[in-house]
Amino acid sequence: MVNFNHIKYAHNRISNFIHNTPILTCENINRETNTNLFFKCDNFQKTGSFKIRGATNTILQLSKQQLTNGVITTSSGNHGAAVASAARKLGANVKVIMPNNTPKVKVDNVQRYGGEIIFCEPNIKARENTLKTMVQETGSTIVHPYNDERIIAGQGTAAKELLESIPDLDVIIVPVSGGGLLSGTLLSAKSINPKLKVYGAEPKNADDTYRSIKRKKIVPNQTTDTIADGLRGQVGTITFPIIQKLVDGIMLVSEEMIVQSMRMIWQRLKIIIEPSCSIVLAALLINNDQFYKKKVGLILTGGNVDLDTLPW
Amino acid sequence: MVNFNHIKYAHNRISNFIHNTPILTCENINRETNTNLFFKCDNFQKTGSFKIRGATNTILQLSKQQLTNGVITTSSGNHGAAVASAARKLGANVKVIMPNNTPKVKVDNVQRYGGEIIFCEPNIKARENTLKTMVQETGSTIVHPYNDERIIAGQGTAAKELLESIPDLDVIIVPVSGGGLLSGTLLSAKSINPKLKVYGAEPKNADDTYRSIKRKKIVPNQTTDTIADGLRGQVGTITFPIIQKLVDGIMLVSEEMIVQSMRMIWQRLKIIIEPSCSIVLAALLINNDQFYKKKVGLILTGGNVDLDTLPW
Repeated sequence: MVNFNHIKYAHNRISNFIHNTPILTCENINRETNTNLFFKCDNFQKTGSFKIRGATNTILQLSKQQLTNGVITTSSGNHGAAVASAARKLGANVKVIMPNNTPKVKVDNVQRYGGEIIFCEPNIKARENTLKTMVQETGSTIVHPYNDERIIAGQGTAAKELLESIPDLDVIIVPVSGGGLLSGTLLSAKSINPKLKVYGAEPKNADDTYRSIKRKKIVPNQTTDTIADGLRGQVGTITFPIIQKLVDGIMLVSEEMIVQSMRMIWQRLKIIIEPSCSIVLAALLINNDQFYKKKVGLILTGGNVDLDTLPW
Repeated sequence: MVNFNHIKYAHNRISNFIHNTPILTCENINRETNTNLFFKCDNFQKTGSFKIRGATNTILQLSKQQLTNGVITTSSGNHGAAVASAARKLGANVKVIMPNNTPKVKVDNVQRYGGEIIFCEPNIKARENTLKTMVQETGSTIVHPYNDERIIAGQGTAAKELLESIPDLDVIIVPVSGGGLLSGTLLSAKSINPKLKVYGAEPKNADDTYRSIKRKKIVPNQTTDTIADGLRGQVGTITFPIIQKLVDGIMLVSEEMIVQSMRMIWQRLKIIIEPSCSIVLAALLINNDQFYKKKVGLILTGGNVDLDTLPW
């Protein structure tokens, strides 16, 4: 089973391909919240999100033959761009299957990193059939966005970097969707310091992980109606057991608080981040008393925002 | 006359009160422009702009009696917030005179840093009369936004920091309005490396410095109708001679290019910056050939943007 050693190997493997992203602080937010916050800025990461960590770790482990046959994914978001970028750097072809109603900004983003777009009808069945057909025809390797030990190990490098810079953190909060980042963070954090608390922040409107923990088994999302478009995924069969075993809690966040905290980060830190990660500050604000005087690491996972459709 | 020694003294004086702000790079903009760009991020500076440098340098040189009597300014923008913050840290009262139609976001910003707002009618005469009356009544010291050697010396510390990190720059481009930053930058840059080229970037719609250089005397702005609200000032009697003597050129920029380059920096660097400083990237893009393969420092002066009135 994937463990902290895999994260250390992953970090060695990918460190020439990624940024060790900066950690920002903000005096006035610290003062207002009576906490000591450290924002790990993977919005400044290559391709604009942390997803390049897991994608690079996975693709660097493919065989020559696999690279020759190319890679394929169905993610039109940050994972798609990350897979395209990582694979193109190794000379592999990249196919990204997208519904034919995908917003242009996402299509452009994947194309910028050299991905070839394969459009399909906008439903899950069409997407899966297209994937199956393409894999059969080309022998492409599927790179899953989260339910893969290589992805989990790659995503765990963000918390490892954070703790190498700020070793005495009391808490880390990360967003949870499919659970790749949360499970990787748990493996890093609990190995480095077993006393460190790790929380997942999840939209109330896509709360499958919260309910899965309660029910002690994976249950599906009932809605995915959230502005946090990176957090609409379903927790995975590999990520869930790790989360279930190690996490200190899942904090649910309303849409209103996601937007409010996104705006707060833009205004105070002067950085562009997605609603899919402002949710970590929102979780802290909602549960503020719990973090009194604590040193809290918040992983800001991405900065790919459509500037024409801001939520205010 | 103010020179590089004053900038070195200023830097020692203020360094505990300001950030040595980070310098960012962007691979894909470098590739597209065939240049090597270094963005000096004073949008991350305390109070959200470089203005804290000059304001702090000035206020730290006031006497106890002057601090007791308080300080005063008529700037409702970044300089006002900087003066408020710097003076409050030394326990001085701060009065900021503003037209009674000043946007709420600017009023709030000055108040956040502890400034007391004095409203006046929205015309220059009312503003000057209010200033005169307040100075007579309270003995407050006026802190000018640019036409003051202490301000120039403070603003020159940004280029000094930039060159301490990237000593082999070929070019620096900074915005020009009243000329405090440009004259300070010139004194730093030309003292550290006389071969280094320094350009001012100025809105076409507020081009007094460009025309003043051409006419060899200070001429007023004919319009100030620019989105770059920090660049509507009039070049000063102390700043202009320094600029006239040392600058390698003033580059004029259209409103369209200011907005386009602002959006480019937001999207690519994932940082929030004002149109008043995206103008430096715009000047580079317009004159791209001139900077082929050059190492260019671009000073990003501020990040105080009203998120409700974005220009796209």
